[in-house]
Amino acid sequence: MIKISLDLMGGDFGPQVVIPGAAKALDRHPDISFVFYGIKEQCDPVLAKFPKLRENSVFHDCELAVSMEEKPSQALRRGRYISTMWRTIEAVKSGEADVAVSAGNTGALMAMAKFCLRTMANIERPAIAAIWPTMKGESIVLDVGATIGADSQQLMDFALMGGAMARALFDLERPTIGLLNVGVEEIKGQEEVKEAGRLLREANLDSLEYSGFVEGDDLGKGTVDVVVVEGFSGNIALKAAEGTARQIGAYLRAAMSRTLLARIGYLFAKSAFDMLREKLDPSKVNGGVFLGLNGIVIKSHGGANAEGIAAAIEVGYDMAKNGLTQKIENDLKKYHAKRLPPMGPEAA
Amino acid sequence: MIKISLDLMGGDFGPQVVIPGAAKALDRHPDISFVFYGIKEQCDPVLAKFPKLRENSVFHDCELAVSMEEKPSQALRRGRYISTMWRTIEAVKSGEADVAVSAGNTGALMAMAKFCLRTMANIERPAIAAIWPTMKGESIVLDVGATIGADSQQLMDFALMGGAMARALFDLERPTIGLLNVGVEEIKGQEEVKEAGRLLREANLDSLEYSGFVEGDDLGKGTVDVVVVEGFSGNIALKAAEGTARQIGAYLRAAMSRTLLARIGYLFAKSAFDMLREKLDPSKVNGGVFLGLNGIVIKSHGGANAEGIAAAIEVGYDMAKNGLTQKIENDLKKYHAKRLPPMGPEAA
Repeated sequence: MIKISLDLMGGDFGPQVVIPGAAKALDRHPDISFVFYGIKEQCDPVLAKFPKLRENSVFHDCELAVSMEEKPSQALRRGRYISTMWRTIEAVKSGEADVAVSAGNTGALMAMAKFCLRTMANIERPAIAAIWPTMKGESIVLDVGATIGADSQQLMDFALMGGAMARALFDLERPTIGLLNVGVEEIKGQEEVKEAGRLLREANLDSLEYSGFVEGDDLGKGTVDVVVVEGFSGNIALKAAEGTARQIGAYLRAAMSRTLLARIGYLFAKSAFDMLREKLDPSKVNGGVFLGLNGIVIKSHGGANAEGIAAAIEVGYDMAKNGLTQKIENDLKKYHAKRLPPMGPEAA
Repeated sequence: MIKISLDLMGGDFGPQVVIPGAAKALDRHPDISFVFYGIKEQCDPVLAKFPKLRENSVFHDCELAVSMEEKPSQALRRGRYISTMWRTIEAVKSGEADVAVSAGNTGALMAMAKFCLRTMANIERPAIAAIWPTMKGESIVLDVGATIGADSQQLMDFALMGGAMARALFDLERPTIGLLNVGVEEIKGQEEVKEAGRLLREANLDSLEYSGFVEGDDLGKGTVDVVVVEGFSGNIALKAAEGTARQIGAYLRAAMSRTLLARIGYLFAKSAFDMLREKLDPSKVNGGVFLGLNGIVIKSHGGANAEGIAAAIEVGYDMAKNGLTQKIENDLKKYHAKRLPPMGPEAA
């Protein structure tokens, strides 16, 4: 049984979309047991439509919901201990749930998750990992927005955490890792990135294979399983790619409705277009994962539909099932044990 | 008459592609007069096929060509004064040409351009500007790879230069400018970006309208005419977007050939697909523009086909015709005059 705590009030549409999303996830994974945090009068009418979901869940009525516009500090002040978002995270801390999922405001969710769960030992700053669709399948890209700037040690931590996530999610023994960089020779890269490359090469880890620098176009190619980058560039790359996909989708729709022949062609090729739409559907790979905390928190896109919410829940499900937090802890422990020789009497 | 100096040896295919590209540009713009730099025995057989081009050009035989793999410092050592790349740039300095175009190695071209043309007064570091296709048309994005990191004053310079380029290229009186940033509240942005925002707001320039921060997905939307970002993130965003476009193109081709019905549909909708391909063709917007030097240098993609080379030449043509260098100089002068009150007797 995988226990998932879910913030029913998160996202642009709240319970109207989050509850149907949970129902979809439960249909596909009957071994999920939900812990819901919501505002009763808003959730009850929607929950009433999903009797099977109601049976497989515990509902906690909360005092307030964090809004999508609230600043993190404000959300923390107003909503600590009592908001649906906070209590969803807290369920992971108390052990009531294996993983927390919310489509709420990213900044507030990160602030609360840090405050409630605290960062893991040896981790200075958490990261947000995205699952990036590639020509070969999927890669993990981190950080996509938790931090701005990162030193070489933080990039190294991102690599370790991303590697553990790839092993948990993609069932790989030794995922390949690349550092995102620019391709101009000699001025190649920030000093931190070059230094992180040295650290990764020297560490020569069992848990991941360092493949060197990659560039922006390697993201879509799926050159490596895990791409490591500081959060400013990572966030911009993610949004630039999402924007390009939407832009091309709009071109395609315009092209296919422009002439009668094109419309006829569209009808013939409809199943192909459906396949393409499926492939490009952002809800299929919805779910930013907060890594580096003492517990797993999944952030769904605020604008996700029910399918998107279900996808985010399923990312959490897979990661809890595969023991992500434990994997990260072990990898970090191994790396740091190698790096810092033991102190005290045993060292003699 | 617009005089364009062209490095015939640049790019992955050299004269085989660069010369046909020049011929295409000349067909469309008969007022171009070319100054060619090449290695005679390699160029002559190709030039022989384009008699009209030969008539409208002067050919200079050079000693050597910079390779695509050479490091900038190495290229500079080996190729200064004597390579086709150097002499193509030098033609702008001597006034023999209005603009220089090369598909050669970016790092070497930038190193030589800086060394030969020097940066403009008040500009610390040059930038590479890309022309970004958007849902509304085109935007200018800079820097996409000349520098790594930028302080607020450098970002301000990028804004001024990008604004001048938008006026020259898009025929706008007061282009809108945005600073590329991440969307998480409070930790919003690097300090430099926030400070650049303050500078832009306070400067309140006649030549450009500051629209605030934009995010990665605003690039494809065309939210602003000019997007300013430091070169590391800018390069990654550009390549991530290019990679996504290629990825979707591959999906589309696979989807359209998967079933018989899809193939029939493709035939009906062929003109629509051709339009789409045209829209997505990277060669249509080929040409990174080096800004901030005492002269215009255009870098074409190394892998560009003849159409791509022609597009890069045409970007240079438009900018020379519209007096880009002069526009940038004027904008910088105006801004700095306002910023630093005049010294000496007149100030009293």
